[in-house]
Amino acid sequence: MVDQCHTAMTERKSHHSEEMKANLQSRLNRIEGQIRGVKSMIERDVYCDDVLNQIAAVQSALNSVGKLLLEGHMRSCVIERIQSGEEEVIDELLVTVKKLMK
Amino acid sequence: MVDQCHTAMTERKSHHSEEMKANLQSRLNRIEGQIRGVKSMIERDVYCDDVLNQIAAVQSALNSVGKLLLEGHMRSCVIERIQSGEEEVIDELLVTVKKLMK
Amino acid sequence: MVDQCHTAMTERKSHHSEEMKANLQSRLNRIEGQIRGVKSMIERDVYCDDVLNQIAAVQSALNSVGKLLLEGHMRSCVIERIQSGEEEVIDELLVTVKKLMK
Amino acid sequence: MVDQCHTAMTERKSHHSEEMKANLQSRLNRIEGQIRGVKSMIERDVYCDDVLNQIAAVQSALNSVGKLLLEGHMRSCVIERIQSGEEEVIDELLVTVKKLMK
Repeated sequence: MVDQCHTAMTERKSHHSEEMKANLQSRLNRIEGQIRGVKSMIERDVYCDDVLNQIAAVQSALNSVGKLLLEGHMRSCVIERIQSGEEEVIDELLVTVKKLMK
Repeated sequence: MVDQCHTAMTERKSHHSEEMKANLQSRLNRIEGQIRGVKSMIERDVYCDDVLNQIAAVQSALNSVGKLLLEGHMRSCVIERIQSGEEEVIDELLVTVKKLMK
Repeated sequence: MVDQCHTAMTERKSHHSEEMKANLQSRLNRIEGQIRGVKSMIERDVYCDDVLNQIAAVQSALNSVGKLLLEGHMRSCVIERIQSGEEEVIDELLVTVKKLMK
Repeated sequence: MVDQCHTAMTERKSHHSEEMKANLQSRLNRIEGQIRGVKSMIERDVYCDDVLNQIAAVQSALNSVGKLLLEGHMRSCVIERIQSGEEEVIDELLVTVKKLMK
């Protein structure tokens, strides 16, 4: 089974579809724009409550990107590496998931 | 008591110190850079686990900005507006805090 | 203005309506039962995924109790204490809210 | 490879060590006691801020139980089921992890 999670030089790589990459990039572009929006709100002394609500929106958008990535990772590299006997991928995944948990 | 949360045209404004504004802006600049970093990682097919860890770092940085803003807001506008009898500020604050809660 | 947040001996007290107290108690009774349910699931070696979903349900129920309490607190003691000049209630509230935030 | 995640009647089971089960049970006993403590605090009209802090402590204890269970599950059933070709365990795990995420 060709392990797509490795290149010849054994450097770990992800292998999203072009469609997934475009989806992630467009979400991140929007988040980047939102961050610039928050900076401008603060520069213009916009009322804090409005800024806080904008930050909550960015957090939610960022969480969605995280969940998309986690899903893509678990459906590809995690399965492939477990099937090729690399159970340590679970240790790695646990550390990451715990950071994303409440 | 001069209510700093209003301008003459009664549009609500925040009134951070220049020092606080500089602090918030520098944090947001860093976050903006981190988001661009995540975009580049995805473009270069960097291993998902590394990208997920970077997203967790951005979430944590964003949470810190939110906490700083919430603190500034509660110590200024919330106190001022309650002391001038505008108890509805609590309704507004509750909606915002609940979005930031787990 | 009678400060309900104090008793004669200046010990801080809350002053929920009987209706609110009954609501909180019934939610907490249910949570207590859910915790016992989780214990029994573990004792009977129920599949972990099912137990994890039950824990997520308890977390959500507990968050709701926290939000109800926070709302009651902010609408009563926080307003009363600010209006009687005890602005340090904001310091106290910030510490608590930050623990409940993501 | 004997798949411990199944009994003869193919009902999914977990298979924690006795030591893990004792650890989980003692944590859950403490949480159950804390919930009863919160109920008593509310009954005695204890100041809301103190009750909220106790709820934050229960949330944190519950999160720890969730992380322990998730770890045990991922190191056993998830690996076993993927190695025996049951990749749908990833779908199930994703649903659960997303509920536990921020």
